[in-house]
Amino acid sequence: MKILIDEKNRKYVVPEGKDEVHTHYGVVSLKDVPVNSRVKSHLGREFAYIEGNTLDLCEKLPRTVSTVLRKDFGAIIANTGIGGGSRVIEAGTGSGAVSIALANIVKPAGKVYTYEIREDFFGKAKQNIELSGFGNFVEMRLKDIREGIEEKEVDAVILDMPDPWSTAKHAYEALKWGGFIAAYSPYIEQSRKTTEALKEAGFRGIKTLEMIEREMEIKDVGIRPRTRMLGHTAYLTFGRKY
Amino acid sequence: MKILIDEKNRKYVVPEGKDEVHTHYGVVSLKDVPVNSRVKSHLGREFAYIEGNTLDLCEKLPRTVSTVLRKDFGAIIANTGIGGGSRVIEAGTGSGAVSIALANIVKPAGKVYTYEIREDFFGKAKQNIELSGFGNFVEMRLKDIREGIEEKEVDAVILDMPDPWSTAKHAYEALKWGGFIAAYSPYIEQSRKTTEALKEAGFRGIKTLEMIEREMEIKDVGIRPRTRMLGHTAYLTFGRKY
Amino acid sequence: MKILIDEKNRKYVVPEGKDEVHTHYGVVSLKDVPVNSRVKSHLGREFAYIEGNTLDLCEKLPRTVSTVLRKDFGAIIANTGIGGGSRVIEAGTGSGAVSIALANIVKPAGKVYTYEIREDFFGKAKQNIELSGFGNFVEMRLKDIREGIEEKEVDAVILDMPDPWSTAKHAYEALKWGGFIAAYSPYIEQSRKTTEALKEAGFRGIKTLEMIEREMEIKDVGIRPRTRMLGHTAYLTFGRKY
Amino acid sequence: MKILIDEKNRKYVVPEGKDEVHTHYGVVSLKDVPVNSRVKSHLGREFAYIEGNTLDLCEKLPRTVSTVLRKDFGAIIANTGIGGGSRVIEAGTGSGAVSIALANIVKPAGKVYTYEIREDFFGKAKQNIELSGFGNFVEMRLKDIREGIEEKEVDAVILDMPDPWSTAKHAYEALKWGGFIAAYSPYIEQSRKTTEALKEAGFRGIKTLEMIEREMEIKDVGIRPRTRMLGHTAYLTFGRKY
Repeated sequence: MKILIDEKNRKYVVPEGKDEVHTHYGVVSLKDVPVNSRVKSHLGREFAYIEGNTLDLCEKLPRTVSTVLRKDFGAIIANTGIGGGSRVIEAGTGSGAVSIALANIVKPAGKVYTYEIREDFFGKAKQNIELSGFGNFVEMRLKDIREGIEEKEVDAVILDMPDPWSTAKHAYEALKWGGFIAAYSPYIEQSRKTTEALKEAGFRGIKTLEMIEREMEIKDVGIRPRTRMLGHTAYLTFGRKY
Repeated sequence: MKILIDEKNRKYVVPEGKDEVHTHYGVVSLKDVPVNSRVKSHLGREFAYIEGNTLDLCEKLPRTVSTVLRKDFGAIIANTGIGGGSRVIEAGTGSGAVSIALANIVKPAGKVYTYEIREDFFGKAKQNIELSGFGNFVEMRLKDIREGIEEKEVDAVILDMPDPWSTAKHAYEALKWGGFIAAYSPYIEQSRKTTEALKEAGFRGIKTLEMIEREMEIKDVGIRPRTRMLGHTAYLTFGRKY
Repeated sequence: MKILIDEKNRKYVVPEGKDEVHTHYGVVSLKDVPVNSRVKSHLGREFAYIEGNTLDLCEKLPRTVSTVLRKDFGAIIANTGIGGGSRVIEAGTGSGAVSIALANIVKPAGKVYTYEIREDFFGKAKQNIELSGFGNFVEMRLKDIREGIEEKEVDAVILDMPDPWSTAKHAYEALKWGGFIAAYSPYIEQSRKTTEALKEAGFRGIKTLEMIEREMEIKDVGIRPRTRMLGHTAYLTFGRKY
Repeated sequence: MKILIDEKNRKYVVPEGKDEVHTHYGVVSLKDVPVNSRVKSHLGREFAYIEGNTLDLCEKLPRTVSTVLRKDFGAIIANTGIGGGSRVIEAGTGSGAVSIALANIVKPAGKVYTYEIREDFFGKAKQNIELSGFGNFVEMRLKDIREGIEEKEVDAVILDMPDPWSTAKHAYEALKWGGFIAAYSPYIEQSRKTTEALKEAGFRGIKTLEMIEREMEIKDVGIRPRTRMLGHTAYLTFGRKY
């Protein structure tokens, strides 16, 4: 996926097979422009023209639902040890953005198995995942994960669904020894229910974290945290099978 | 690396070739005990006996210096798009813990190139990296990164050193278009200097983040954030080449 | 000052001598309505009709400049021990909101001495302070505090000005033993300069705090911090004469 | 109350009628030393000798129970508009520290009415309040506030007790129109129960806040938030009668 980035760091996807992009700063013609260079619009504003990576793609995906943010995604990776070659279960698929971000980590030796119950989400996510070029590393299941997980000996189970507790036992069975579960929940009561279900299913080392990201403004006039910040996205509840 | 985990989630490395481990809860004999099972000490306390993963290893590594914490490591991965197959520069190597955690992400197709100037750190890190089994995915350089980076077209440059600004230009040259730099600095003045050096070197999309992790205590008596928390580790300054 | 509060907790000042108020929810007639009761607008929406207190007043004051927020005002009171009978210096006066809030604490035995250099601010603040009914407890000075403080043996000096360091020595002289200085600064570099000037002036027990206020949403669906929050207002630097 | 402050800002109460104080830095003789001056111990270490204020007193009080911290006390004052002359209900009395801090604000025209059910706490708090010299501004009641509040038309009701919801109706009756209730609760479930009881009792403008205080380290080497911080004390739930 090729993208343009303007002076305000806004990104524009270059549609496949097109060589003209309409932006906030005028029309950019890409005819005879090599990728990985800078180019000007008809209004004389500068753009970077680059081959986008997974981050860019996830940012520009058509969204069906709100998705796990970078700060939370990073915490999930760092607290579960997911890496190259990992086999990871995910539910629900949603727009497919998390599936793609996970595939980016586990590829090429690993695999993401993603469960979704809504047919409309499933269809849209399928398109997104194909667009990412990571189709080979994501296996999609149109199935209710609360009825069971087909895979065995997986490294991690990532749940972004309203009732992660309903999947605690299936997750325990699907995980290998030493494997992790992570559940993403906006409300603290969900984390309590998940915590209790994880205990009952046999998980240990259970903890619930909240990640807060502050951006610092570093300007000539001085340094200060930004005036407006995101107050909350979700609590992350982790457990481990051992 | 095999480990024991006790009832308080403390971990003990099982020394290679030994079948007896001394713990806070008595002696554990591992003779004829299969890995991935539970076992009791001579005092009757229960332990999990598992094959440790990268997280366990990084926790138990002999430390030469303090290292990037999970919350910051996760933010670096999530904000740079590092994934399976990425080629990443890192400096300084320190204990090797970040090299190993990065190798865990990029393996098997990617590579971590790590620079260290202190011979004593280099030697210890070499042992740690070999212990991790990721030696094939980490190339170690006993060299001052401020004098230049040998690699080209890398995906990311991660700097945990007192003066990341001194490496801004080298990093820019080493990175491919669309690649990221991330610098880890305890003091905000360091982030300002880095920000200015990144701008001068040509980086764009520069931002400085602080990650704050809060753990929630979910108990029968009620839910609350933990009384004591880590107030600060470092500011993370990011830039991108485009 | 009488106010109306609508169903969304929005406040409307009842103009002196009027008995009709135009609101977002229609016209409210106050003819023959006793204060401290509820009343309906011509659209049938309910309003509370109460005698406002200092908080209401400070919220509804015509603003000339942005002002110290509650979270920071509370921290200043709690960390300086200002109370009934205290004599407090303040600069700059700004809209007079902080002068009024301080007068509300120190009245009737104490006094607030407030310094302002801009004539336009001074005039507007004078009106606001008179409106508050606290005129007897506030002495206003149209004077540059950096040129000296007239009062002696005061309990506290509160500085909300761009260069609080310029007033450190004057503040030290004006304070009684055991008295406090507090400086409100958006940028951390200001706090550093203030810290250094306080040390040089002889202050001890110097510290810089940042107050972060999180609002929790407690709803039927669950509890969570609010999605959007105020990221930063100012750093508060305190010192004490002893 | 006279106090000594050492070089590390530690405070020592000078016992009534004594002129020698034993400290971490040696013995300090106060014979013929005027208050509000500096003095050396027999080891040559410098001390400030000052007339302590309410803050010092509250810090040095013999504690029976943990008490509301400055950050939370400040938020209560700032969000309720308590000031000189206010009449305030408080429960439970605990060590009396909050009663004294409130008395410091409302004196001399106002009054604090404080309720405590435990006789042992009551006795100790009585001593502390007398020691503060604010006895005239605090009326102590050895009584269960859940059985009713004697006072009427008060400005605020401050509850630091395990079940503030049990007092919601009594508080509503005791408050004047426009008056505030504030409840201090470590666990979020307590805030939910209080929120529901406040609604049922007729309170409006209900909100729950958490105050987080970060201290910044400003040193020659650089500026950063402190490594260790207090993660949580309590949630503050506010309501207003209107």
